[in-house]
Amino acid sequence: MDAKEPIAAYWAACNARDWGALGALVADDVVYDLPQSRERIEGRERLVQFDAEYPGEWEFVVERLVADGRHAATWTRAVMDGIEQVGLSFFDLDDNGLIARITEFWPEPYDPPEGREHLTERY
Amino acid sequence: MDAKEPIAAYWAACNARDWGALGALVADDVVYDLPQSRERIEGRERLVQFDAEYPGEWEFVVERLVADGRHAATWTRAVMDGIEQVGLSFFDLDDNGLIARITEFWPEPYDPPEGREHLTERY
Repeated sequence: MDAKEPIAAYWAACNARDWGALGALVADDVVYDLPQSRERIEGRERLVQFDAEYPGEWEFVVERLVADGRHAATWTRAVMDGIEQVGLSFFDLDDNGLIARITEFWPEPYDPPEGREHLTERY
Repeated sequence: MDAKEPIAAYWAACNARDWGALGALVADDVVYDLPQSRERIEGRERLVQFDAEYPGEWEFVVERLVADGRHAATWTRAVMDGIEQVGLSFFDLDDNGLIARITEFWPEPYDPPEGREHLTERY
């Protein structure tokens, strides 16, 4: 099993706002976790509704897609009207090659901690 | 080339605070990026020094290690004295199998946005 193709299709479906295609890629009982807010969405129907209702028409640019058997990770940039946000997603497929679990992180910018300027440059 | 073994060894070296082992896994001209603070560390010597000087003796628990040829991603929990922080890291190896690039994110908790309580549960 290679998660690369279904996960590439997942982001393509998000960008096409093709909720039928998105739903076909995930398991009935998919679990989508957002550990930062400790929110969980359970089931295909709710997940698709969540994505369809999400405010704004974001475009996802996939920076990295690393796939390994039934596991995958992506680093994406969500872009809309010059705004950009980074998303990190970990995927697990079930025995049928459907996405059974997504764990997603949305890191925010922060100021560099003091005391390491002798080792770092800013970009 | 399979990045799984060197990346597992990377986190093991961090946990063992074995800076010689860590240095042997990365390229001379490794680039370590922290996009949230836009900090960059260049070169093996500085990277090893950064890790060695980093305050606190954190232990890294690898939740996921996804490897694909010369690319890998990890989701780790950094644990110290009951404090826990999530780290997401993307790795690229060079032709010699050494780690040439690390891009790392440290997402922070946030409050759930309003308007999606009908789809989410909290955990």
